[in-house]
Amino acid sequence: MKLYGFFRSSAAFRVRIALNLKGLDYEQASIHLRKNQQFGADYLKLNPQALVPALEDHGHLVLSQSLAIIEYLDETRPKLPLLPSTPLGRSRVRSLAQMIACDIHPIDNLRVLRYLADPLGHDEKTVETWFNHWIRLGFDAIERRLSSEADTGRFCHGDAPGLADCCLVPQVVNAQRHKSFDFAPYPTIMRVFETCRGVPAIAAAFPEKQPDAE
Amino acid sequence: MKLYGFFRSSAAFRVRIALNLKGLDYEQASIHLRKNQQFGADYLKLNPQALVPALEDHGHLVLSQSLAIIEYLDETRPKLPLLPSTPLGRSRVRSLAQMIACDIHPIDNLRVLRYLADPLGHDEKTVETWFNHWIRLGFDAIERRLSSEADTGRFCHGDAPGLADCCLVPQVVNAQRHKSFDFAPYPTIMRVFETCRGVPAIAAAFPEKQPDAE
Repeated sequence: MKLYGFFRSSAAFRVRIALNLKGLDYEQASIHLRKNQQFGADYLKLNPQALVPALEDHGHLVLSQSLAIIEYLDETRPKLPLLPSTPLGRSRVRSLAQMIACDIHPIDNLRVLRYLADPLGHDEKTVETWFNHWIRLGFDAIERRLSSEADTGRFCHGDAPGLADCCLVPQVVNAQRHKSFDFAPYPTIMRVFETCRGVPAIAAAFPEKQPDAE
Repeated sequence: MKLYGFFRSSAAFRVRIALNLKGLDYEQASIHLRKNQQFGADYLKLNPQALVPALEDHGHLVLSQSLAIIEYLDETRPKLPLLPSTPLGRSRVRSLAQMIACDIHPIDNLRVLRYLADPLGHDEKTVETWFNHWIRLGFDAIERRLSSEADTGRFCHGDAPGLADCCLVPQVVNAQRHKSFDFAPYPTIMRVFETCRGVPAIAAAFPEKQPDAE
């Protein structure tokens, strides 16, 4: 398998965690987002959305969208499942994952931050406030759920890492980008994050460990 | 089942389509987003994210996040499936759905448009340009995929409506909100949309048909 990603991309980071947790071998192709390589003609042929990640499987299938990729990996390589065995459990894990992958991350994605700067003309401070705002809104709700729902365990759902953790870890790393983000209101999120960081397969997926890290 | 939604909410619209396509009975509870009922204490207990939809099943289970809800419906009521039978097919449909549910809709959601107006101080015209911009970017990629991929049929995937159509239809309706959105570059999207509109179960899910329509 070949993962088209970028060391800093949260969405690629999710897929790296999933691949590592499942013990799957893959090579990485770096698509440098700040250098706009996602708009190169060759990459657009693989993913017309000009976003990472994309995953090549069996040398010819190309998949896009991180959550869809992770579900595909879980279905085609069912050992060490990333989703629970019951519909209700799967629904909870997908819901937590989507609270991040739909309602936090896309609003704070590079292309949106760029639009805030140009054409909208906002300065770095305003963009940083925006960035933190959407994470805070999302984390408020996730913290309330993780701290009150019986299914939370050492990880987001029970005592093994799964799809929700694949999303939570990169989002926390993303929030750490600006020193101004206050993590104090999120003890449960941070407890799960630290537990995840202690898992070698997850630690190996961190941005600074990637071949294209700067 | 009880669906907490709002006639205008794209995400609730997706779930209404899914429920109707499966022929499931449900009652609706209207959470008026413009009147901020999503922030009411009772609703926050059901969904701390202060977003619709939420779905109550068996009178006590409360699910959130439209895609997670639809997958749950598909798993617990497998008749008339909304996802294909192969992992690769499911991955394609989920990817198309997420191109909308992650990368278009959340950036154009009410709370984001409100933030652009206050605190950022943008006028209606600027907000409308923003709104159309993200739909156009997403539709460009979706049009390219639907028009070039062999799995596209009368609907997004094959000849029966499914999860991707549940997302596409509300997003087209959303784009129609401003007269300024140009649909000319999207003949395949619009062909699928018109086909969907001809399906009574989908037509019945449109905003203007809902009990809380204004």
